[in-house]
Amino acid sequence: MSGNNNEERYTNHRSDKDKQLLLNRLKKIEGQVRGIHKMVENDRYCVDVMVQISAINAALKKVGFAMMEDHVNHCVADAIKTGTGEETITELMQVIKQFNKS
Amino acid sequence: MSGNNNEERYTNHRSDKDKQLLLNRLKKIEGQVRGIHKMVENDRYCVDVMVQISAINAALKKVGFAMMEDHVNHCVADAIKTGTGEETITELMQVIKQFNKS
Amino acid sequence: MSGNNNEERYTNHRSDKDKQLLLNRLKKIEGQVRGIHKMVENDRYCVDVMVQISAINAALKKVGFAMMEDHVNHCVADAIKTGTGEETITELMQVIKQFNKS
Amino acid sequence: MSGNNNEERYTNHRSDKDKQLLLNRLKKIEGQVRGIHKMVENDRYCVDVMVQISAINAALKKVGFAMMEDHVNHCVADAIKTGTGEETITELMQVIKQFNKS
Repeated sequence: MSGNNNEERYTNHRSDKDKQLLLNRLKKIEGQVRGIHKMVENDRYCVDVMVQISAINAALKKVGFAMMEDHVNHCVADAIKTGTGEETITELMQVIKQFNKS
Repeated sequence: MSGNNNEERYTNHRSDKDKQLLLNRLKKIEGQVRGIHKMVENDRYCVDVMVQISAINAALKKVGFAMMEDHVNHCVADAIKTGTGEETITELMQVIKQFNKS
Repeated sequence: MSGNNNEERYTNHRSDKDKQLLLNRLKKIEGQVRGIHKMVENDRYCVDVMVQISAINAALKKVGFAMMEDHVNHCVADAIKTGTGEETITELMQVIKQFNKS
Repeated sequence: MSGNNNEERYTNHRSDKDKQLLLNRLKKIEGQVRGIHKMVENDRYCVDVMVQISAINAALKKVGFAMMEDHVNHCVADAIKTGTGEETITELMQVIKQFNKS
């Protein structure tokens, strides 16, 4: 699971069901972004657009946190059990901090 | 520009150029969400997906803040000049707080 | 109200009552920080300390947003009415974005 | 380390050096809050106070994240190794989400 920034890394712990759930949520979020595009096109009132943007952010964060919990339960836990936890935890903390600022 | 939650409200201060800029950014964000969908489909590593989610959130917030600045410069400023600022400012504060939590 | 970073700037729109309210809240927050100090001293469980830190952040943001609303209602509104709104709005947007990241 | 909300929980993994570092930072933050109190007392300009509030929030989050990293490296890792990780991870996710909103 380790690797530098240039190579693609993969995971194998997502069940088909969890994967489908994530894909459905992302499909819905894609539709919400298209909805905002239409609102701007139709000159809808700024605050109403901003409220929708905020809703998408919340939905994206929810997906991100679901993925994070899964990640800690699998990748981080496995790394800790095999004694290579440190690097994985440093990586986790970076993404937690990045989420916090975005 | 006022109204209850059931009626659609419109704005008329967006220049064609600003509008096109917003639409381009939203189109790009829609593509980024589609990119995450593909990453999940291809079982890409959790942290790499989360970093992308965080990037989309940041891009959406940037659009939101650009829209907010425009909103204060036009809708809020106009409301203040015509003596109906209070309601508009309350509405602005609500959306600022919502952004902060999302 | 304008000025560079080196000179101290003042405001005159805070009523004695609002000022006292802010001062009381800040006094309480100071006590909460002291409380966390004591928790760390006594080796209290990490998560319990983190929950308290989060509570203080929320309390500080609440003070900040109260102050921001007041600022928009007075300083920003006055600047807009006298035709010098632009600079004040740029400054406002900067502090909104900074809050969002902290 | 587990427990309900009514009992005090303790940790034993903080080294004297780490503990002192945390205590020093919290002492400094307490002084910063007192500094804001003084700024409000002296009618300092709203935006200048807000910038300071934002700085304290950032400092508190920094302490919180340092504590969180330590927590994952010790409490969470130990729980995972002894097979009781699930509850500790749920608790961790809650505090991460709370931080994100505060």
